[in-house]
Parts: sequence; structure tokens; C-alpha cells
Amino acid sequence: MPQTTIFDELESQVRSYCRNWPVVLATAAGSVVTDENGTEYLDFFAGAGVMNYGHNHPDLTEPLIDYLRSGAIVHSLDMHTAAKREFLESFREYVLTPRDLDYRVMFPGPTGTNSVESALKLARKVTGRQHILSFTNAFHGMTLGSLSVTGNAMKRQGAGVPLTNTSTMPYDQYLSGVADDFQWLERVLADSGSGVDLPAAIIVETVQGEGGLNAARPEWLRALQDLCRRYDILLIVDDVQAGVGRTGTYFSFEESGIVPDIVCLSKALSGYGLPMALTLIRPDLDQWEPGEHNGTFRGHNPAFVTGAAALKRFWADDTFQNEVQARAAELREGLEKIASGYPDAVVKGRGLLAGIEFPDKAAATRIAAESFRRGLLVETSGPDSEVLKAMPPLTITSQELQRGLGIIADAAAEVLGDQTVA
Amino acid sequence: MPQTTIFDELESQVRSYCRNWPVVLATAAGSVVTDENGTEYLDFFAGAGVMNYGHNHPDLTEPLIDYLRSGAIVHSLDMHTAAKREFLESFREYVLTPRDLDYRVMFPGPTGTNSVESALKLARKVTGRQHILSFTNAFHGMTLGSLSVTGNAMKRQGAGVPLTNTSTMPYDQYLSGVADDFQWLERVLADSGSGVDLPAAIIVETVQGEGGLNAARPEWLRALQDLCRRYDILLIVDDVQAGVGRTGTYFSFEESGIVPDIVCLSKALSGYGLPMALTLIRPDLDQWEPGEHNGTFRGHNPAFVTGAAALKRFWADDTFQNEVQARAAELREGLEKIASGYPDAVVKGRGLLAGIEFPDKAAATRIAAESFRRGLLVETSGPDSEVLKAMPPLTITSQELQRGLGIIADAAAEVLGDQTVA
Amino acid sequence: MPQTTIFDELESQVRSYCRNWPVVLATAAGSVVTDENGTEYLDFFAGAGVMNYGHNHPDLTEPLIDYLRSGAIVHSLDMHTAAKREFLESFREYVLTPRDLDYRVMFPGPTGTNSVESALKLARKVTGRQHILSFTNAFHGMTLGSLSVTGNAMKRQGAGVPLTNTSTMPYDQYLSGVADDFQWLERVLADSGSGVDLPAAIIVETVQGEGGLNAARPEWLRALQDLCRRYDILLIVDDVQAGVGRTGTYFSFEESGIVPDIVCLSKALSGYGLPMALTLIRPDLDQWEPGEHNGTFRGHNPAFVTGAAALKRFWADDTFQNEVQARAAELREGLEKIASGYPDAVVKGRGLLAGIEFPDKAAATRIAAESFRRGLLVETSGPDSEVLKAMPPLTITSQELQRGLGIIADAAAEVLGDQTVA
Amino acid sequence: MPQTTIFDELESQVRSYCRNWPVVLATAAGSVVTDENGTEYLDFFAGAGVMNYGHNHPDLTEPLIDYLRSGAIVHSLDMHTAAKREFLESFREYVLTPRDLDYRVMFPGPTGTNSVESALKLARKVTGRQHILSFTNAFHGMTLGSLSVTGNAMKRQGAGVPLTNTSTMPYDQYLSGVADDFQWLERVLADSGSGVDLPAAIIVETVQGEGGLNAARPEWLRALQDLCRRYDILLIVDDVQAGVGRTGTYFSFEESGIVPDIVCLSKALSGYGLPMALTLIRPDLDQWEPGEHNGTFRGHNPAFVTGAAALKRFWADDTFQNEVQARAAELREGLEKIASGYPDAVVKGRGLLAGIEFPDKAAATRIAAESFRRGLLVETSGPDSEVLKAMPPLTITSQELQRGLGIIADAAAEVLGDQTVA
Repeated sequence: MPQTTIFDELESQVRSYCRNWPVVLATAAGSVVTDENGTEYLDFFAGAGVMNYGHNHPDLTEPLIDYLRSGAIVHSLDMHTAAKREFLESFREYVLTPRDLDYRVMFPGPTGTNSVESALKLARKVTGRQHILSFTNAFHGMTLGSLSVTGNAMKRQGAGVPLTNTSTMPYDQYLSGVADDFQWLERVLADSGSGVDLPAAIIVETVQGEGGLNAARPEWLRALQDLCRRYDILLIVDDVQAGVGRTGTYFSFEESGIVPDIVCLSKALSGYGLPMALTLIRPDLDQWEPGEHNGTFRGHNPAFVTGAAALKRFWADDTFQNEVQARAAELREGLEKIASGYPDAVVKGRGLLAGIEFPDKAAATRIAAESFRRGLLVETSGPDSEVLKAMPPLTITSQELQRGLGIIADAAAEVLGDQTVA
Repeated sequence: MPQTTIFDELESQVRSYCRNWPVVLATAAGSVVTDENGTEYLDFFAGAGVMNYGHNHPDLTEPLIDYLRSGAIVHSLDMHTAAKREFLESFREYVLTPRDLDYRVMFPGPTGTNSVESALKLARKVTGRQHILSFTNAFHGMTLGSLSVTGNAMKRQGAGVPLTNTSTMPYDQYLSGVADDFQWLERVLADSGSGVDLPAAIIVETVQGEGGLNAARPEWLRALQDLCRRYDILLIVDDVQAGVGRTGTYFSFEESGIVPDIVCLSKALSGYGLPMALTLIRPDLDQWEPGEHNGTFRGHNPAFVTGAAALKRFWADDTFQNEVQARAAELREGLEKIASGYPDAVVKGRGLLAGIEFPDKAAATRIAAESFRRGLLVETSGPDSEVLKAMPPLTITSQELQRGLGIIADAAAEVLGDQTVA
Repeated sequence: MPQTTIFDELESQVRSYCRNWPVVLATAAGSVVTDENGTEYLDFFAGAGVMNYGHNHPDLTEPLIDYLRSGAIVHSLDMHTAAKREFLESFREYVLTPRDLDYRVMFPGPTGTNSVESALKLARKVTGRQHILSFTNAFHGMTLGSLSVTGNAMKRQGAGVPLTNTSTMPYDQYLSGVADDFQWLERVLADSGSGVDLPAAIIVETVQGEGGLNAARPEWLRALQDLCRRYDILLIVDDVQAGVGRTGTYFSFEESGIVPDIVCLSKALSGYGLPMALTLIRPDLDQWEPGEHNGTFRGHNPAFVTGAAALKRFWADDTFQNEVQARAAELREGLEKIASGYPDAVVKGRGLLAGIEFPDKAAATRIAAESFRRGLLVETSGPDSEVLKAMPPLTITSQELQRGLGIIADAAAEVLGDQTVA
Repeated sequence: MPQTTIFDELESQVRSYCRNWPVVLATAAGSVVTDENGTEYLDFFAGAGVMNYGHNHPDLTEPLIDYLRSGAIVHSLDMHTAAKREFLESFREYVLTPRDLDYRVMFPGPTGTNSVESALKLARKVTGRQHILSFTNAFHGMTLGSLSVTGNAMKRQGAGVPLTNTSTMPYDQYLSGVADDFQWLERVLADSGSGVDLPAAIIVETVQGEGGLNAARPEWLRALQDLCRRYDILLIVDDVQAGVGRTGTYFSFEESGIVPDIVCLSKALSGYGLPMALTLIRPDLDQWEPGEHNGTFRGHNPAFVTGAAALKRFWADDTFQNEVQARAAELREGLEKIASGYPDAVVKGRGLLAGIEFPDKAAATRIAAESFRRGLLVETSGPDSEVLKAMPPLTITSQELQRGLGIIADAAAEVLGDQTVA
């Protein structure tokens, strides 16, 4: 039986990544994954933003195996465990305290959408309001509440019911810089006749990982926070993809200096691909009844173990952060160089979450396919998959980064030809 | 610093289990968990139905550690991996084929609510209808779509917005057997003036794990399936808690002989406490667009590894199933014996998902607390926590089971006194 | 051009009555309407319950013409006018005071659905709850809020969006008397796990004019009121069709002795076919902000004039009420006699809102058509138009009533044949 | 008993106009209404846009009294009557044919909100889409569907439930002319990631009568129609207040040349203050099932009689229209003159639906009160009642108009003082 027969026969039509990369993955280490036939792929995908520390980082593997070997408890819902305690202590020591952040930590279930749903519920409960504002091209998850703040039309239609109690506002630069920032949002909040109900919260990604790598400017984020405070609206930052170092700091919003009321984290939290999510809550907003939001897999101890190990290994001082920022600069430079060869191609994103939007909306998909043929996993982003999206492990070496950029450059040239004006 | 200070200081008020069992768990093996102080607890809770094969079963630990040690890929979204292939092949060989079931397998994200949300979305998409019927005291999850088919008022209110596009129908025996089964459901479907819109699907648990251990009779389930077929309504069985052997067969609906159109599975799937969920879909209903429902942690390979190992170890022949059924009979007998000592106490549930409802609604909570003091983890169920709920690992030994029943008997006597009429 | 060409050419497909009665009406007096060709029709339809005092009652015509002739103001929104004052005084004197009822009077716009929408809004505002319960086969109107508490599937589908924030409960005798009254409603209110959110209000018709002439028993209405009071739920009676004398008393709920929290009135209020509606509100519930619900045609003075004249003419003492009750008894007797000739034919309704349900669901429509051929306007009711519905003016004479019953008897015999068992 | 005691004692708190104008109106003729004490008020209110032909126009009074005197049928639902036929023929002859408009005519119930609800339902049914776009500061009615496309926060909150399946877009000039017209609307329609679902329809008022007298420019309306056609979105014009001659042409959209897919009419239709409404439907969209939308007071024959008489009297040639346009020019000139005396005061609106927005938001309310003291009925408009709104009968004489403008000028001077810069 061919290697992939069972997938074709048994698995649902809903699968997608395996259609573009139709191989069977076997092993992975750092920034390289290898298929069953021994073919290696450089990884500019990082498990959709999960593998920030690279695949199978040995400093995480060992504590994980030790934990499992020791007979320690694996699954514990919201009961106390030693592993959870260590995670919480590490999170306080390496994340909250150095950044002078005061949050309560909620374990809402192990996925990003669990965290987003919990954030929306809490915001509505605390404020007594029902409306939520989100932004154009936002992506917050696939369960009904998260979907109602997600922009993508195909995914929205998948709900099969109207998505309600939300309105979309223009993200930074959405109106091409022609209109004033916040002109629309500011007006609808100020005008009691606008027809946009005063919201419980505004939910925002600082970089829209799925929506086309739009990156909000720090001043826009600060102005957004100001607007929220002026109207007593909670500000939720969904840092599921952009958080945990992806943009060069632990939280993606650090650069701007804002302090969200609620923060959603998941993906790279465990550092090892093990499902885990957190919702950070401003202490006075922590008005949950016990059990008012719950879920079975809130106490996934292997994830606590690798998560705590990752915090200790990467966030005890600035070394890692500085390296990430250096890599981010290299990535930006490399992408700019490639983009410069194609009229109207534009570099987007921030940190190690960056890419190129080509004027030909079909180009990115074709370049990603050609890159795969050349040994690079790289995906696209945006409503029309119009942005080539580079999101390598944060631990990628400079050499690997350059190699990947080279593959993209070659693939782009292959797909688009040399478009330099002579 | 006391062992639990960090939880009090940093964790959200939403936590609940740790309030009843305020110890720090350290290790676990089979049906016993041990806290940091070395105190052992017999486990009649099984991680809320996750640890069906007991904690840290060595036949699963070894393949898991081998997998991690080998450098194999951990996180892969919906890409092909060798571990996923082996899981799918095992699922077909040990679960679907022997039961003559033809389903497409969808990986909807790693939790039960992900599976339920995907099922509701698909049912609405395929039928073009928006309404869903669920049952009184149903529990299907905490994200917005799942919450809208969940009965519990406190949890519903947590949504902060109206829960729409659903109606509640009476579960089996809800009207105390006085009314005909399905009298209400049948009438509202037959009557075009009923005001209940023709639903896309009806979602049901065969045993209501959270809603009070109500167990539907096989004939009721068959009649429900007949009704669904008569009106071209999809039948979704949420087997997240009752599935994977809990009631004595792999699927909880096998006893009744029904074949649902969609099945939701999670909790015990990985067999090791690792997050994982499946949605099983009648092949002709698998009309998803690629990526129409997705999620980051759909490719959690450690869970595939232990899940496949568990299928091979426990479901390759009838041995395990027969043992579970023997234990279930012992549990029932033991609970009946305890209940017989208290007027109007009633045994509820099915398989190793059973308990006692006491006429004094506060009794179960007090007995559970007293049981904990005596070294037994056992929780309650029902809208008023009025049912003491015994849900041990399926691998529990007869001796352990009797020991646990003894603790419950003593705790009940302590709490309620001897109520036997002399 | 034929008499009806313009309707076919210019009017929307949505028209319905004119399809069954394809003549052009010209004049009307008492219980007789006459078409352009001079053909007379005895009226058992009464303008869908509007012409309770018969067409063009001279005691109303004269004050109306006098008013118009005098140059008095016709349209005044919610401003004070002499005509409105007189209506309010008459309403207090002849309706509220004699029945010892204490209500605030709201003019919500001139149609029944305006009144229902205002009642639902107020109930939600006052209680802070969003859910409303209504009954199977209820009809409350065609605007979105009213439609959401209406049972008919075709009309519901016309909304084009899901109808939300409402649940349907079984009307009296809906479950054929097999189940206890209120078994389902009582259970879902008592059970915090039922999935039916505690409602702001329950809205009910004492006789379901559109839904098949189901008439609630007085004891059922009293028990409904008790349930509402026990759970602090507002009770709204929609008396748009059954009120204003239709069942033999001014309000249809008088027989039962209940006192609703909110009452909706319209149709026969003006007594002359002029659009008008009221919402009666328990004084402490009158918590509207000025203008929070409004509408242009709230001050339709010609309707106030005829409405006040009708109150004085018909409700100053018991004479009229006694006559209506006598006619109602004759109607019932006549219908029973007809029904007795057809196995399983059942008389339904109450007062002068009564009819026959035939076992053959198509019979009523055919008998109505045959009755029209024989000079009688009579319509059908029920989700399948399965009930022949007799609703003559309350002022109909005994002779006219017998003549109409005779036509129905003949039409039934023509359509169904003689089914008497020899 | 004082004249208004009964209102205070018996009527709901919801009343509003009578609070500002606390007199009891008695008679009315042309542009003058007179209270019970004989005090005359010049009418710049026109019954909120209902009395376009002035109060009690003798050319309408006579046919109405003749009709009532003749014994003709008053109330007929959607049955054929001679009066309805004459109205339809007149509407075709004097309204549709001369303007080369091809519409089916629906009688949706007698109020504007009935018409709007029917339009929204039909648009959703025909397109199969559920979303509707409306504009900032729109007012479309108080029933749930109409309220969901209305902007005013106080009125929206009155719904007591979330208003769903709608989004608000910026009306013409809403963003102060700084942003391009339609920049936001165009972007959200073009961008499949915008999160604004493709709507069934866009509903618009050409002049926002309640929302502050914002008047859309003809080129904006044309561009809106172009956008709708490009995306296959239905365009609904709510001409309830601005139609029937108010802006100088029968339909308010004639100036722009657009041809809406659906038009809502009410208020001034009957010409006499008698409730009536129409929904005009592009013939191919007339896909209603018989009775899919209905309502009791759809066949209000007195309104048909005066409505037909008004069409014949005022719309048989251009005379009336020309006079209205002359008055409109005078009104504009007068308002401009008053506004010029106050820095930043701005004239708004179009035709005889115009007013002044003062920079001090409280000014308009105070000027209206002072005008009343001086014998003029004039109301305010806008979310903060910040616009003084002049809406006299279209039949007002030039002298009356000047007199009213004089009162406003004096009242403004009294309230605001002389602000002319010396």
C-alpha cells in the first residue's frame, strides 16, 4: 500500500496542508524536517507558529522524557500538580515580573480558540455588554465565538449560521493610509446614532498571521488602547501566533508599550508542539465563577514541563531575544532584496513573521509550491493567499535563514521570471 | 512558600477541582494517584474520563518515550506523518472494521468541544439548515457553538450572549416515564405550526456524564434514530465521555445498534491524557472544503502514538471489553447495595460511568468530600451536583473497585447516618 | 378592462384572501358584504376579527363623519387630542374600572404586531432577560420580533434569518391530554440543566385564532399564571384576535380570572376597521423611556372616535355581552350538529371564534370554497388549514347565524357526502 | 378634571411629543393646528411627515365622507375592493407610468415599519443571504427587524436583545469628506477577509429624517447603486419620510436618477393621516408565497380613497411639484439666513425636509421650545437632537413659510443671543 493511501481512503476532505506538501514526515530537528524517504526540508513554517524553539529541542526533550519516565501525573484538569506549579512560577519569574505585568493566569483548554472564547466570555460577563469589535482580516479561531470575530469569508460561511454580536473595524492601514487612523472606529464610538453598539471589548492581533501579515504600527496600537480606555472598552490582544517571541519580544505588544486587559496565548507556549493555552487577565477582571469556563485538557502536564523548561532556557536573560531580533533583521533584509526585484512587491509583517505580497495574487502560492520542490516548507497568508509567509523557528541559524531566502529567491525567479526593468 | 501559594496568587478564580481536592498531585499509576506528601488516592475520577486505561500504562509509556527519543516529529497539523498513519490504520483495523462502520475520520483540534463544533458546522453546511436540537442536561462543551447545545444554566450564562439556533428536547425518562417517549419531539417535528424549525441535526449523549448520569435506553436511541431518518435529520452522538470503552463497548451506542451520522470522540482517545479528538463522518456527508474547519493542534503525534498503542493493546480482541463489562457489573452491584440503604436513592448511569442520586441534593457533594478524606477521588454530576459519580479507570482491578465502593459506603454512612428502616 | 385586471397586473404575488374570494367588494353593512355585481355574502369572517360590531355600524358612522366634518385633527402621533382623551376616559370607564383592572395604556402603533413587539421589548427591558417563551401554533405577527414567537413554519421561513431568543412550549392539550398539563414547561423551568433559559415573559393567546382554534381551558390559564408568578416571569396575553368581546367577554381571559402583566389589543378596538392597537401594562412595569418605542400612526383620531363610540354603545352594560354569549351558544350548537355528521370531526374554539376540524385535512378548505359559492365568507385556520373557522360579527342576528350554519352544513354535505353511518 | 389629567394618570411613560407640546389639540386645517383653548400653532412638523397636503384638505375630506356615507366597505385585508382598484390605477397613472417605473405593489400593513420589515424579508428570501447593510444614523422603525437597521443607541437598546444580521456603513459625508466616498463600504465588499458578510441588500434613506437631516448627494446615491449592482446586492430605498413629494419630487430618489430594487412608502401616502404603507418591488423579485407576509390592516379603504384623491389632485401634472420646489427654495434661503447669524451653524436636509444644526448641541431643543411658545410646532432631529427640523406641509403658503421662519429666527435670537460678529 502506498505511503499515503490510508489518508486518502479514511481521512476527511477537510485536510489541507498535506495537499500542498504530499509527503509523509518522519523526523524533525531544529529547523529541518525529514520525510520517510529521507528527503530533508528546511522549515520556514514552524508548525504554523508552534515550533518557535525548533523541532525537538534537546533541552526540552530531556525534561519531558524524565517526567514521563518518572511516573509523574500526565493529565490533571485544573488540579494542582508539581509540574503546573513550576510552570506558573517560571511564567511569573521569566515573563510577568521582568515586564512588570500583573495578570491572573487562566488555563482555558489547550488551544488558541479556547483562549479566545474564554476572553470573549469574560469580557461580556464583566462589562455586561454583548458586542465585540474585531478587525478586518482578523483570525481568531474556528469555534463559533472565535469565528464570529474572524474575517475570512470561507471560514465564516463554514459556521452555517449567522455570526452575531460582533462588528468589523478597519485594521491599521486598511484604508491605505488615505483615511485618518481610527476615523471610522472613533466616529462610531462617539456617535450614539452610529448603529454600532458600545462593545464589551476590542480584540486585535498586533500582526495578522493568517490575514496577510499586516503589522499594526506601535502608535496605532497605543491609540487603540487610548480609545478603549476612553470608552471603558476592554482591549484583548490575541497573541496566539505573534506571541512567545515571534516578533522579537515575548509578547508582540511590548514594542508598543500597551498593556492589554486580556491576552490570549497558545501555539508556542509549550515549546515542543504539545497543546497548551493561557488566558492572561487583569486581576480585577478575574470575576469568573469556579468552573464557569472549563475543559478537559486544561492540565496537560507534559506541556507544563516543556513550557517551564523553555522559559528557563530561552527567557532567563536577553540573549535569545537579541538573537531573534538579529535574525528578524536578516529576514527583513533578505525579503526586501527579493521583493525589490518585482515591481509593487511589498514586504509585510514583523519579526520572524514576515513575507512578501506580490501584485499577482496567484504568485505566492506558486512560489510556495516551487520552494517545496526545492526543499523549503513555506506557506502563504491573506484572504487570497496572496502573501508568501516566512515563519521559521526562532532558533534558526543565520546560515539556514540565508539558505531559505535563497530558495525563495530562486523559486520566485522561476515562477515570475526576471522582472527587473533593464 | 506553601505548596499551593502560587496557585492562589496567580491562577484565575475559574479553577474548580483543586478547590475540592486541595493537594498537589505528583505521580500516578493505574488507578492510584499520589500527592507530594506521599498520600495515595484511589481514583474513581479518571481525569474526567480521560484515563480509561489507567494512569501511565507502561504499554503506552514505552512507545511514547521511544517516539520522543527517536527524534520523530511531534507537531504536524494536518500533514501526513508515520505516527498518524499508524493511528489511522489501527483505528480502522481495531475499531471501524470489526464493527462494520464506514466513517471518514476528521481531526478537528484536540478537544471534545473542537469535535462538537466541527460536527455542528458540518451538519448545518450539508443540510443547509441552521437549527440544532439537543437534550435537557446535555453537556457538549464550553465554546460558543457547543455551549448553545449545553443545558447547564450557569455555564450557559457564562456565554454572555444569547445562545441561538438550538432547541432543547426532553432526554429519555426526563418526564419521569409519565409521558410517551418522544411525545414532544415527535409532535414538534410533525407539526408545521410547532415553532420548532426543522433541524439540521440532533446531538445526543447516550449517557449524560455531566448532566446527572442519565442513560438512554437502547430502544429510546433506536427510536431517536428512526425519527431522525424519517425527517432527514442528522444524528450526532457525542461520545466524548461515554466512548472509548467507558460503557463496556468501544462506542457507547453499540449496545443499541444505532449508527450515528456523525460521532464526536476525544478524552480517552490517546489513552494517556494527551489531548486528541476525532470527528467521525458518514462518507457522503464529508463535504468540507479543504481548510474550512481547522486548528493548530490537529497533528499531535505523541497522542497518535499512544492512541495507536492503546488500540492494539486493548481492542485487538474481546478480552479487555469483557473485563470492563465484568467490572461494570461489579460497580453496579456495589452501588445498588449502597443505594439500597437509603430510601429513594437511585443508581444511575451505565458501564463504568455510574453513580447514585440521593434524595437530599446536597448529599453527593458531602459524600464526595468525605470520600476524599478517606483516600478516594470521586466527583459529582448533575445540575445540582446531586449524583455521586463513579468513573474509575477501565483497567481498575476488582479489588480496587471493591475498596473504592467500601470507601463510598463508609462515607455515605458517615454523612447520612444509617437510614435503614429497622 | 375586467374588474380585477389591475390587481393581477400590479399587485404583488403575496396577496392571498382575494385568491379564494375573487370578487370586488363594494359595500358592507352589519353581517353582509356585497360585491360590485350586487351579489351578497353573509360574513362569517368579519375582516379577520376586526368587524366585531359588524360593518359600518350606524352608531359609529355618525360620530366618525361628524368628527371629520368638524375639522378636528386626524393625525396626532402621541400628542394630546380631545378624541384621544375621550377614548382613554371611555376605556377606563367601560373596560378597566368595571373589571377592576389597573393598567397603563400604551399606543404602540396601529397594528397587532406593533403591540406584540412593544410587549416583548418591555418585558425584556424590565426583567433584564432576553428569552421569551411562546406556544405551539401561536400567531403573534409578521414583523421580526413577533414572528420569532409565531409557530407557522412557512411564515417563520419568510423571515430569512434565524428566529432567536425564544422557545416553543406545548399549548394546552397539545400532547392530547396524555401528558400532564405543563409537565414540560414546569420541568424546564425547575431544572437548571434544562437548557431553556429563564424567560422574561411567556406570551399566550387564550384561543389560537390562526393556529387552529385551540382554546385554552380556564384552569390551564390559571396554572400558567401561577407558574409565571412562581418564577417571576411576566405573562403577556395577546388578545388581538380573541379580545374585544370575541369570546363573550371584553377580554378573552376574564372567564379564567387571570390578570396578565401585559395585554396586546388591536383588530376590533376601533370597531370600524380603522387601524388601532393598545398595549396594556401593569403600572409598575411601565418603565419606558420617553420615545423608547414609537411609531408614526399612534394617534389615529378617527379610530379613537369610533373606538370610544363603540365602548359607549356596546360595553356600558351587560346587554351586548349577554347577546354575544347567546349567539356563541347557538354557534356552538350548530357546529356540534354539523360535526356530529362526520366521524372524528371536532368542534374547536370558544365564543364567536369557533369551528370544526375535519379528519380529512383538505376538507375545511373545500367546504370554505363551496360555502363561498353558496354566499358565505368563511375561512380556515390551522397549520394545514384543517379547521373551518366561523368568526361572524358579534352583532350577527340569530337568523343570520342559522343561515350561515345552514350553508356550512350544505357545503359540508356537498364536499364530504353523507357520512352518517346508516 | 384638568384637560390632561387622564393622560398623566392612564397613559404610558413612553409618550414623548406631548411632553414638549403639552396642549390638547382640537382642530387642524392646512398648516395650522388649534388647541382646545383656541390657540393656533403654525405647523412646521406636519405630523412627522404625514400631513404633506396639510391637515384636512377639503379635496380629500369630501371623497372620504362620501365614501363613508355611501356604505362602502371600510376594512378588507387583501381582498379586492373598488377603492383599492382606484388607488392602484391612480398610483400607476400618476406615479409609476410618468416616471417610467416598473414595480409590483405590495400592501405590507399600514405603517412604515411594516414596509421595511417586508422589504428586508423579501431581500433575504430572494438572495438567500442573511446580512443587511444600513447606514449610520439611519432610522427605519421600531419593530425588531427595522430596529436592527436603525442607528439610534437608545432605541436599539430598547430591543432588549442583540440586533443581528446587519452592519452599519458610513452615510454620505459621515467621515467629514476627508475619506473617499465609499472607501470603507467598497473595501469590505471587495475584501473576502473583511469580516462583513456579503449582504442581501443595502437599505438607505436619501435624507435621514430622524438621523439629523443628512442628505445624500445624487452622485453618492448613484455610486451606491453602482456598487450594489456590481456585487448583486439589492438596493432598498426607505422613502417613508422623504417620499411622496417631501423633497420636491414624488420619490426622493428621482433627482439622482437611481432606480431602487425595493421602495418603502408610508406616512403621507393616504394624504390625510390615515395609516397606509406600500412596498414597491422590482417585478422579478416578487417571489413571495401567497400570505408569506401579511397583516390585518392591509386593506384600509378610507386611506385608499384619500390616497387616490390626493394623487389625482396633486400629481396629475407638474403644478404641485413646482410649487413645492419653490417653497423648498424659500425654506432653504430662510434657513441659510438664520444660520448665517450663528458661527458654525449649518443648514441641512433637502426640499421641505430641512433644518439647522447648531454647534451648541442643546440649542435646537431650546429653540424648538421657544418656537412653540411663539406659536410654531417645530421639532428636532439627530442623535443628540442637535438639528432644528423644519418639515411643514408641502401645501404651505409662502406667507406662512416666512412667518414660521420669522418665529424660528426670533426664537434663535432669544435662545442664543445675537452672535453676529460686529
